[in-house]
Amino acid sequence: MTTTTHERVGDQGIVHRRTFQASVEDVHRAHTTADLFVRWMGPRGSHVRLDHFDPTTGGAFDYTVEVGEGRYRFWGSYHEVLPTRIVHTWQFEGEHGVTLEMLDLVEVAPGLTDLVVTSTYSSKEACDQMVESGLDEGGMDSDFERLDELLAQLA
Amino acid sequence: MTTTTHERVGDQGIVHRRTFQASVEDVHRAHTTADLFVRWMGPRGSHVRLDHFDPTTGGAFDYTVEVGEGRYRFWGSYHEVLPTRIVHTWQFEGEHGVTLEMLDLVEVAPGLTDLVVTSTYSSKEACDQMVESGLDEGGMDSDFERLDELLAQLA
Repeated sequence: MTTTTHERVGDQGIVHRRTFQASVEDVHRAHTTADLFVRWMGPRGSHVRLDHFDPTTGGAFDYTVEVGEGRYRFWGSYHEVLPTRIVHTWQFEGEHGVTLEMLDLVEVAPGLTDLVVTSTYSSKEACDQMVESGLDEGGMDSDFERLDELLAQLA
Repeated sequence: MTTTTHERVGDQGIVHRRTFQASVEDVHRAHTTADLFVRWMGPRGSHVRLDHFDPTTGGAFDYTVEVGEGRYRFWGSYHEVLPTRIVHTWQFEGEHGVTLEMLDLVEVAPGLTDLVVTSTYSSKEACDQMVESGLDEGGMDSDFERLDELLAQLA
């Protein structure tokens, strides 16, 4: 079974890696197409409400994950969206800290893609906090399990 | 005379500080109004061509500083634009690295504003490189001298 690995790099960085049995193009599409994005983002049983979703260079996003009575808002701006690279900011409403996220999509073999997410925190303290809470930024592991399933359906 | 100070903070951060004899509102305006922005950004004698300038939460910018035959393109996205805080990404075309910039405007006294710019680099190496080249990110010192002069005219 595929797992996501998380590695602290320096004072302010965490690098997350996962291999997907899908093409670079499909992994990219799942991140940049609204009706695919909402099918894997957020915990199982949740609903993602996209208030704004413009995954292009200079665009932005603003979405709320609805779980029962809970509402969790995430927002940020897209610095760069290229075929094998997506760079955006990311913030969870109610927290002060903003994170810079760089997603690199690397073709390992045809139909096999490494996704490397480099999260840069705006302070060492913010990064420490994420490490202490278990490195699984925003429930990334379970999101990626859902993404795995979605990609299998697309193939 | 006012000067800009630069302080390395941790592996990936540089904090730049300068006090302006102007209100928080005017310092903010100079960063978010196109016809003011072009009057202080870039070295003396240069011309700034704004290809895109939308300094709002979720907006973006893309401008080129023209100096003689030289063309220097800078671009990024605005994560957040609030009355006392501006958070954006920043990249110089031709360089791989993206920087996260947080500007905090602090009223020290009426008509006196501290501008605190926290630059977070996406790697320790990129931050080391900036420190080695003299900490004056993108010619910030001379830009801020020009900003000083502009703010005196606005007052």
